[in-house]
Amino acid sequence: MQYLQSSGKVLTKKNINQNLVEMQYAVRGLVPITAERIQKEILNGDTSKPFKEVLYCNIGNPHSVGQKPITFYREVLALVDCPMLLEREGVEKLFKPDVIKRAKELIGLIKGGTGAYSHSQGIEGIRKHVAEFIKGRDGHPAQVGDIFLTNGASSGIQMILTTIIAEPTDAILVPLPQYPIYSALIKLLNGTQVGYSLDESKGWALNIDELMEKIREARVQGAKPKALVLINPGNPVGNCLSYDNLVDLVKLCKAEGLVLLADEVYQENIYADRPFVSLKKVVRDLGPEFSGFEFVSFHSTSKGIIGECGRRGGYMELCGFDPEVQAQIYKLASSGLCSNIDGQVMVDLMIRPPLPGDESYEDFTRERSAIFDSLKRKSIFLHESLNEIAGVSCQPLKGAMYAFPKLDLPPKAIAAAEGAKHAPDTFYALSLLENTGICAVPGSGFDGPNHIRLTFLPAEDKLKTAMSHFRRHHEMFVKKYS
Amino acid sequence: MQYLQSSGKVLTKKNINQNLVEMQYAVRGLVPITAERIQKEILNGDTSKPFKEVLYCNIGNPHSVGQKPITFYREVLALVDCPMLLEREGVEKLFKPDVIKRAKELIGLIKGGTGAYSHSQGIEGIRKHVAEFIKGRDGHPAQVGDIFLTNGASSGIQMILTTIIAEPTDAILVPLPQYPIYSALIKLLNGTQVGYSLDESKGWALNIDELMEKIREARVQGAKPKALVLINPGNPVGNCLSYDNLVDLVKLCKAEGLVLLADEVYQENIYADRPFVSLKKVVRDLGPEFSGFEFVSFHSTSKGIIGECGRRGGYMELCGFDPEVQAQIYKLASSGLCSNIDGQVMVDLMIRPPLPGDESYEDFTRERSAIFDSLKRKSIFLHESLNEIAGVSCQPLKGAMYAFPKLDLPPKAIAAAEGAKHAPDTFYALSLLENTGICAVPGSGFDGPNHIRLTFLPAEDKLKTAMSHFRRHHEMFVKKYS
Repeated sequence: MQYLQSSGKVLTKKNINQNLVEMQYAVRGLVPITAERIQKEILNGDTSKPFKEVLYCNIGNPHSVGQKPITFYREVLALVDCPMLLEREGVEKLFKPDVIKRAKELIGLIKGGTGAYSHSQGIEGIRKHVAEFIKGRDGHPAQVGDIFLTNGASSGIQMILTTIIAEPTDAILVPLPQYPIYSALIKLLNGTQVGYSLDESKGWALNIDELMEKIREARVQGAKPKALVLINPGNPVGNCLSYDNLVDLVKLCKAEGLVLLADEVYQENIYADRPFVSLKKVVRDLGPEFSGFEFVSFHSTSKGIIGECGRRGGYMELCGFDPEVQAQIYKLASSGLCSNIDGQVMVDLMIRPPLPGDESYEDFTRERSAIFDSLKRKSIFLHESLNEIAGVSCQPLKGAMYAFPKLDLPPKAIAAAEGAKHAPDTFYALSLLENTGICAVPGSGFDGPNHIRLTFLPAEDKLKTAMSHFRRHHEMFVKKYS
Repeated sequence: MQYLQSSGKVLTKKNINQNLVEMQYAVRGLVPITAERIQKEILNGDTSKPFKEVLYCNIGNPHSVGQKPITFYREVLALVDCPMLLEREGVEKLFKPDVIKRAKELIGLIKGGTGAYSHSQGIEGIRKHVAEFIKGRDGHPAQVGDIFLTNGASSGIQMILTTIIAEPTDAILVPLPQYPIYSALIKLLNGTQVGYSLDESKGWALNIDELMEKIREARVQGAKPKALVLINPGNPVGNCLSYDNLVDLVKLCKAEGLVLLADEVYQENIYADRPFVSLKKVVRDLGPEFSGFEFVSFHSTSKGIIGECGRRGGYMELCGFDPEVQAQIYKLASSGLCSNIDGQVMVDLMIRPPLPGDESYEDFTRERSAIFDSLKRKSIFLHESLNEIAGVSCQPLKGAMYAFPKLDLPPKAIAAAEGAKHAPDTFYALSLLENTGICAVPGSGFDGPNHIRLTFLPAEDKLKTAMSHFRRHHEMFVKKYS
């Protein structure tokens, strides 16, 4: 019986959910945890480190590294959460007319206010706006009933994978490198992960033939590929897929009977000339033959220019799903009651910015452009300065918020890593952290070994200093192990 | 291959996660969905119904049925989300000094503001306050590292059950009647649910001998009981367990090697003389012998007097867990990044009300008392008026927000229900809805057949009218099927 466990505990690492035990999630793994410890030591007066603070480049969390929230969003949110203010004398002194107007409009949409549970799919009026946003973006209609407002993209991804994975042989194709929420959830749900490589030498392009081969291999090995994950713009690799690449992918998925799961949370983070094209547009452009094709698009308030991570706002659009299956997904959403309402409000704000003529338009545009322009400058700077370092190579950063440079590590370093029981890139990231205070995530955590992922979110001056430290550390590291 | 499915769909009800397909969640099931349809028809001009609006008594969602948010909470939240206001002229005209002071204090605790992801367990400063709250409530210390801030209680419950259930024979004991999130998640996670009955004739008391018997039976049948769910104050039954009852339960769980999961989200909803006693206090009062006993307490901002459901705020405290196991739960929390920050802020506000002398104290106390006094009056009114109806009996409503009356249904009604392929109580609830507009949840959805669950959240005048309609409907229903 349980209480005879040697540890004297009912629950031990041996008898709990082994899928959870085996699950890995690197974004908050060993390196960031070590960074937290070091930061605490510094705050407690430890002066032994060659740096004064940890520079967190491990997670796409813009506000935590100094990016300011956009004023308009927060003003409207404040009034929606605290409608009592609208009755008070002096409110028009603190808030612009369009802010008050927008807040009243949202309050009208939210039955019971932000303190009430909403419909399990989210507030209908906000889903209607999402549908209009999608139509405006793609030139193809969207249905309110197909939109689910979610706690960030993560909870939507979890709902969909929970629905799809029925048995251990059910396989999900994920890009390599990938964002670890996919590998983590596939493991937790006891499914099979099948990786397909992105071609680094071609700017992390998607290779359809290689993908086809992986699907065939998986079937030969007894797996049942059911869905394919697409991350566009790419995380961690920062690529942005071409229209033709997407068309080929859709045709392949239809022919092979795969549901396409499109992680499009970085759709506003485009720094190259190539524009973002949504999966929805590509599929609908293909016409009636593809009208029944099953796919999901995930979006979030956490990324883009607004970076409202703490809101945990997001949505997913389901297309082509069997109504019986969609009803099951609705039931799953219902069992969690609903996503947080402030997150739903932020989704509405994200897709309906102030318009020319609105009192907030100028400030909003200035704040937004300042953030975007800085991100673009930093993407270029990081790409260039990484490629200037011997033994480091980085593909062009077309989108998202990350650089994913390749590291040529000397054999002695790889041996030393083995000795320390670390993957070489983890060994490198720990050395980088200890010597420079830069917190990066090892590529192996993204199924992209011998790389590291660096966000380019910190302020430009900090990033410039950091890169000179990075360069010095890399040269020192290579020298030490040569 | 998938694309050969008869429906032409990759995903069909037959090939998706069958645990999800079998999962049931009644709180937003057939009756509420029918109610939504009817309400829409009425709004679209349908006058055929004998009522002008649906009265939602199906879900503990206070603000959706007219309960006003407490001003102090919303004022602080507005400033924390929109700190720019603090710099503006006239802010002190709109906000009281203690509101501004509290907002600045919270802003100081939240690195990066409410738009940044927090630590995966939640903001440390807020967890520190939660630990102080628990110590103040129980007279026993709590550890910051044992507190997890969650998206409502639901996500905490999901994390814990995901950790515990390792194989289909792993059993979770749940009270009968129960709140369906437990049955739903146990099914979704492919575990075994073992019910233990609460004794309706004794005010839904917990019967230790019957519980012991159920554990033995489960083991005989090859199940491995690992945890026991306790809902106190009770949902849906509205009971409140005695100190001695809790002591006996803890001793039993320790002896039998069961982790105790205490759903204590209604701890402030106490209307009888018997006070709420937390599981934590009971366990710690038992002394060092029980210091290693494993249990979890769940709390939420959604219930209590504040009813901030839409915030999706909550916390769980883990006690006695093996550090290795707790590390796995931390990893699981990390894979969801963090709970929404406004929900975390609301947890802090819930546990730290304004104090005597604070400028907001009087208004806060008045608003809070008005809500509590009304809930208490309604609990007494509902209990009495239900018991006045022949064929309906309701136990005293000591806590929570629900009445769970027993219905003596005539054999002909049961036959008619069978004919309609509904459980008798579902059949009854649908008739109640169609004839009175009252939306209640069938007891079978809570594993409490031949009952219905009614919230007493609607305004007192509406509830009074509703009960006269309820009485008339019941008499009509009994007559019709006699």
